[in-house]
Amino acid sequence: LESGMFVLARSIIEKMPACDVALLLESSPPANRKVLWNLTDHDQQGEILEELNEDAKDGIISLMDAANLVAVTEGMDTDDLAYVLRGIPDSLYQAVLEQMDAQDRHRVETAFAYPEDTAGSTMSTDTITLRADVSIDVVLRYLRLKGELPEATDALYVVDSTDHLIGEVPLSTLLTVDPSLSVAQVMNTKTGSIFAEMPELEVAKLFERHDWISAPVVDHDNQLLGRITIDDVVDIIRENAEHSMMGMAGMDDDEDTFAPILPSAKRRTVWLALNLVAAFIAASVSNMFEATLEQMATLAVLMTIVPSMGGIAGNQTLALVIRGLAVGHIGNSNTRWLIGKEAAIGLLNGMVWAIFVAVAVVIWKGDITLGIIIAGAMFINLLVAGIAGVTIPLIMHKYKIDPALAGGMALMTVTDVVGLFSFLGMATLVLRY
Amino acid sequence: LESGMFVLARSIIEKMPACDVALLLESSPPANRKVLWNLTDHDQQGEILEELNEDAKDGIISLMDAANLVAVTEGMDTDDLAYVLRGIPDSLYQAVLEQMDAQDRHRVETAFAYPEDTAGSTMSTDTITLRADVSIDVVLRYLRLKGELPEATDALYVVDSTDHLIGEVPLSTLLTVDPSLSVAQVMNTKTGSIFAEMPELEVAKLFERHDWISAPVVDHDNQLLGRITIDDVVDIIRENAEHSMMGMAGMDDDEDTFAPILPSAKRRTVWLALNLVAAFIAASVSNMFEATLEQMATLAVLMTIVPSMGGIAGNQTLALVIRGLAVGHIGNSNTRWLIGKEAAIGLLNGMVWAIFVAVAVVIWKGDITLGIIIAGAMFINLLVAGIAGVTIPLIMHKYKIDPALAGGMALMTVTDVVGLFSFLGMATLVLRY
Repeated sequence: LESGMFVLARSIIEKMPACDVALLLESSPPANRKVLWNLTDHDQQGEILEELNEDAKDGIISLMDAANLVAVTEGMDTDDLAYVLRGIPDSLYQAVLEQMDAQDRHRVETAFAYPEDTAGSTMSTDTITLRADVSIDVVLRYLRLKGELPEATDALYVVDSTDHLIGEVPLSTLLTVDPSLSVAQVMNTKTGSIFAEMPELEVAKLFERHDWISAPVVDHDNQLLGRITIDDVVDIIRENAEHSMMGMAGMDDDEDTFAPILPSAKRRTVWLALNLVAAFIAASVSNMFEATLEQMATLAVLMTIVPSMGGIAGNQTLALVIRGLAVGHIGNSNTRWLIGKEAAIGLLNGMVWAIFVAVAVVIWKGDITLGIIIAGAMFINLLVAGIAGVTIPLIMHKYKIDPALAGGMALMTVTDVVGLFSFLGMATLVLRY
Repeated sequence: LESGMFVLARSIIEKMPACDVALLLESSPPANRKVLWNLTDHDQQGEILEELNEDAKDGIISLMDAANLVAVTEGMDTDDLAYVLRGIPDSLYQAVLEQMDAQDRHRVETAFAYPEDTAGSTMSTDTITLRADVSIDVVLRYLRLKGELPEATDALYVVDSTDHLIGEVPLSTLLTVDPSLSVAQVMNTKTGSIFAEMPELEVAKLFERHDWISAPVVDHDNQLLGRITIDDVVDIIRENAEHSMMGMAGMDDDEDTFAPILPSAKRRTVWLALNLVAAFIAASVSNMFEATLEQMATLAVLMTIVPSMGGIAGNQTLALVIRGLAVGHIGNSNTRWLIGKEAAIGLLNGMVWAIFVAVAVVIWKGDITLGIIIAGAMFINLLVAGIAGVTIPLIMHKYKIDPALAGGMALMTVTDVVGLFSFLGMATLVLRY
């Protein structure tokens, strides 16, 4: 590409499936993305856009004008369409909406009625509905006339005359039952349905637990609004898991690996600022013991060990609790047991590592008192780390703060302060008397 | 439950769907699990076992004898069956195998032929195959005779007389085409198929990229062996994402939130041991400067700030690269660009925070030289953190070490050593001259 062989590149890209072009775009630095996008086949652009991750998608959208956007969004799934339109400036949005046909405009408005990250904004509206009183034979003939089913259709939904969901007929049922039976006789009435206001994450949990491939979305009156398919749920699951992992490192999960430098630096700097505050809190703890440190510089050499071990132990517990909260395993009934368990692990590992570090320090520095002090501080800090590792995320969860984001920093501050305070504090007492 | 109302509990549990019982078991401490398991409906136990996470599953399996296992595993999916049998002792395994019927035994042997975590061990063998020369009408009549399709079937596979895969017919096609056509006329021959030896993670990537619901598994001769369904892929995606998150905190992703205390403590202690080594390496760096620290205790108070900021900045980059490697965005063609980008971010944030921390230190300690020293160390460490955050995981990836597991610890050692060395080293030079 860099050697300017655009014609060749274009012919290669045009032959690639949309999902591969999307991967290629995501794997390219921003400057190359623009060039690559202009080489893509116009008919394929909508499909490619659907496959891109959010950061890359936003970059591409910002290159387009209204006419371009209308052309690209034609035939898109409702949820992707809503995403694209949510991201563009208001003036452009009006222009795009005006150029759309009535059906597309209606679909956009439906999706916009629900807040982002709910079932309503994720659903697509291309469902096939049946009436309960017709026979399977009629359904089969209707489907043959239709000639094509929407993507990832594994069931047709049965509604009454006012669009209330009353059941579903899986495709496998249509294929295996006697065609002379009526829909009412074969339909599955115990279908799980999803309220449009349900948060995405709850939807993903339901899909995972019940191994669904698609599920109907209804309003509070049980009227059918659309359906959610497993491919969207897979994206939700992946995004959420990435959110925990990236969040714990202080990163935005939307951050694209190849985002431009300036915005990336800006996004990360917030986290560094918070850490600086935490680091100064820890430093002010050591500052309280400056006189002691002056007396004995060896303390300064050793004082980083205890906070570091506490940070690691606490982080282990934190990761476990964050996952437990995400999966839905942790509730009121078992928190006390969990705190007890993690405290016990802290106690146990605290003892093991207190002894170990004491021996190491005595051998290294030849000072038994120092060994005892560091052992005591280690034991206290690992115990506190275990308890704080459970209680901090649970308290944050209760007050609707995301523990994957804020938990690590809060925990580290606690283990740093407790680690430094116990180590330097005990050393001060021993030196004084 | 604690009040001994077993009869009531049993009747409640018997009415719950298997997936909810599994969630209940996973959310319970080990002692309660045993009691709850004994209250479950025997006919439902197989299904419950399939839904449990690995740690909980192993705990339950260890309670059962051969006859029990045979009863429970009857009718299980091949992949779950193989999992259960992989986990039991050899003597029990033989006993279970002897009590199985021939068909189940054959299924077990197929799955066992492939290593764990490959497509072959994840696939199920309950596929429906068609011949290319029959008409759709015949297929429809055959399916009606069969009366039921395997779970999550979205396509039937077309094979030749020696079981080679030649195409697939989606259920939606069966329902929409003219029944007088032959299978050969309607089948999709460009089906994506998966080799049995393909690692699970690659399989998950293919499913995500192509929005598949199920896909055929073939051997190198293109003979059909079975199929993989999206519900198994969802588990793989979730496990892998959890692996990154838990791994970065030094935890095993299989670790169950309610695992007993002793094994949990033991599993975590390895990580603490590694961290202790890292902490002692950092301490030995400060030890080189003990004379300097003795001269100026304020250095001891401030010396934790620079390593801490470097650790955070490096970890941000590390998380980004680990995700990029997992998703497949990072390859040979763009690593140099990525290193350049992260170094630039490190440079930028290094400058911002160097100035900031210098001002804070000058105000706090009233010492301009100290401010200049800490600013220099901060700048160096953030730059190194950015570069190490990309190169460490990439080198590990090259040598097949999992960066999600080992990356954080290695990186922290680098940022601690560089941070302490640059801060204390510069201070020593300044104090000396």
